[in-house]
Amino acid sequence: MNNSDTPVTVIGLGLMGQALARAFLKAGHPTTVWNRTTSKADQLVADGARSAPTIADALKAGSLTIVCVTDYQAMHELLGASEVELDGTMLINLTSGDSTQAREAAHWAEQRGARYLDGAIMAIPSTVGTAEAVILHSGPRSDFEAHKSTLGALGTTTYLGADPGLASLYDVAGLAMMWSVLNAWLQGTALLATAGVDAAAYAPFAQQIATGVAEWLPGYAEQIDRGSFPPEVSALETDARAMAHLIEESEAVGVNAELPKLIKAMADRSIAAGHGGQQYPVLIEEFSKPHDD
Amino acid sequence: MNNSDTPVTVIGLGLMGQALARAFLKAGHPTTVWNRTTSKADQLVADGARSAPTIADALKAGSLTIVCVTDYQAMHELLGASEVELDGTMLINLTSGDSTQAREAAHWAEQRGARYLDGAIMAIPSTVGTAEAVILHSGPRSDFEAHKSTLGALGTTTYLGADPGLASLYDVAGLAMMWSVLNAWLQGTALLATAGVDAAAYAPFAQQIATGVAEWLPGYAEQIDRGSFPPEVSALETDARAMAHLIEESEAVGVNAELPKLIKAMADRSIAAGHGGQQYPVLIEEFSKPHDD
Repeated sequence: MNNSDTPVTVIGLGLMGQALARAFLKAGHPTTVWNRTTSKADQLVADGARSAPTIADALKAGSLTIVCVTDYQAMHELLGASEVELDGTMLINLTSGDSTQAREAAHWAEQRGARYLDGAIMAIPSTVGTAEAVILHSGPRSDFEAHKSTLGALGTTTYLGADPGLASLYDVAGLAMMWSVLNAWLQGTALLATAGVDAAAYAPFAQQIATGVAEWLPGYAEQIDRGSFPPEVSALETDARAMAHLIEESEAVGVNAELPKLIKAMADRSIAAGHGGQQYPVLIEEFSKPHDD
Repeated sequence: MNNSDTPVTVIGLGLMGQALARAFLKAGHPTTVWNRTTSKADQLVADGARSAPTIADALKAGSLTIVCVTDYQAMHELLGASEVELDGTMLINLTSGDSTQAREAAHWAEQRGARYLDGAIMAIPSTVGTAEAVILHSGPRSDFEAHKSTLGALGTTTYLGADPGLASLYDVAGLAMMWSVLNAWLQGTALLATAGVDAAAYAPFAQQIATGVAEWLPGYAEQIDRGSFPPEVSALETDARAMAHLIEESEAVGVNAELPKLIKAMADRSIAAGHGGQQYPVLIEEFSKPHDD
């Protein structure tokens, strides 16, 4: 089913909002846009969008309304105005925020008679509208299913669950993975550069290790869910000796050792808590609680 | 060409040395072993290995000699003894150590008339002898090529270059990637657990992100080799705002925030150095120098 006749509304025309509206237009949807500074709608109007004079008018035009503004406070100010009628609307909030803000917004929308899905865009504006743009959604499954086809115009849509906070949590978790892979690659690149190895020569090795280790995660996850960490591959205290080695090598060749030191500090704490004979995923206990630096 | 007739020697029969000798036996190589505590050779002898009475005798028996002892000091003590003749031998040192020790050992061996390849085993003993065991080698290419087929009995052999220190450097760089992927996954698992999401439910998402980001590395490496970091995907100061968000979310839900804080601290330092408008790989400058904590 291709719902390209479904009218849609986009509120907020920053770089990302403009990209979202453009993707809807390209997919053939009658698209209404609204932005506080109306000039940001000019190019979209030239491309076929309708610029609504008020938010209230914009909300009435679409079967669903994408909200993509600066932050949740801006959303509350814009949509919470007394003249704005939310009853019966379907809001899909792609504004950046945290899980608490998402849950509060879902509650707030529900009280006003609106349906609400939260979302997070794991993409840059230039890839929106292609399969490369991953867009995470959380909230009532029935609302996601009802609009899945329309949302598909924006990228690869993924439904995470009923808790509206899930999209934000998966988003930051994914970013932590992204920066961690990049930082580990930079650590290795810096180490190898001391021996005259180009970044391009080292990168395929780093890629292979990252991809290979990622394959272990589903198996390691089972240890966490069982709460049992037998040292099938190696014990944490064996790993810690190799971590010391990574720190020593980094310091010996004169590169940064902060990342190696953090890796070892967390393992050492877990060993001090009696887990030296267990396997790496036992570190979930350290990651699951705050640490006073 | 299958050189399964090539006689080999293994010196050092810890868990890893035993696994190496077993892999050679399984591949059909006449295998001589030596260990300070001779009882560690008993099972291997039962399986067809010959236990040499002295190191000097062991060295004479093989076309190549694998050395896998506690550390480089132990290697120097054992092979540096006055009655041990190294002239004409081919040493392949798989003992754990750093790049400086590897380079020193190569020089030391050369002075005694021995050929020398350094190596690092990226595997656990139980996978040695299978393709899953990656064994890194560095040193003269002609020596690697001459013994490549024989070394293939131990796992997937990779030649890195003439500098004998490369195997150690690639080894620790790969370990940094391994622990970083695992830690980022644990960070995400801890975040999602606060919303009741099982580790098994989150793991495939983490795997997908790690694998996807790893694909960027060759392209990002080109930026480093060119020394030019245009913000094609995003600028570091934009990333830093999302990093702040990761820290805030981690603290809000009560999980560890050390890894998020280190990620942001390094980006902040690069921004303070004037790189806020450039792309992530510009952080190589921070990773390439020591930082006084």
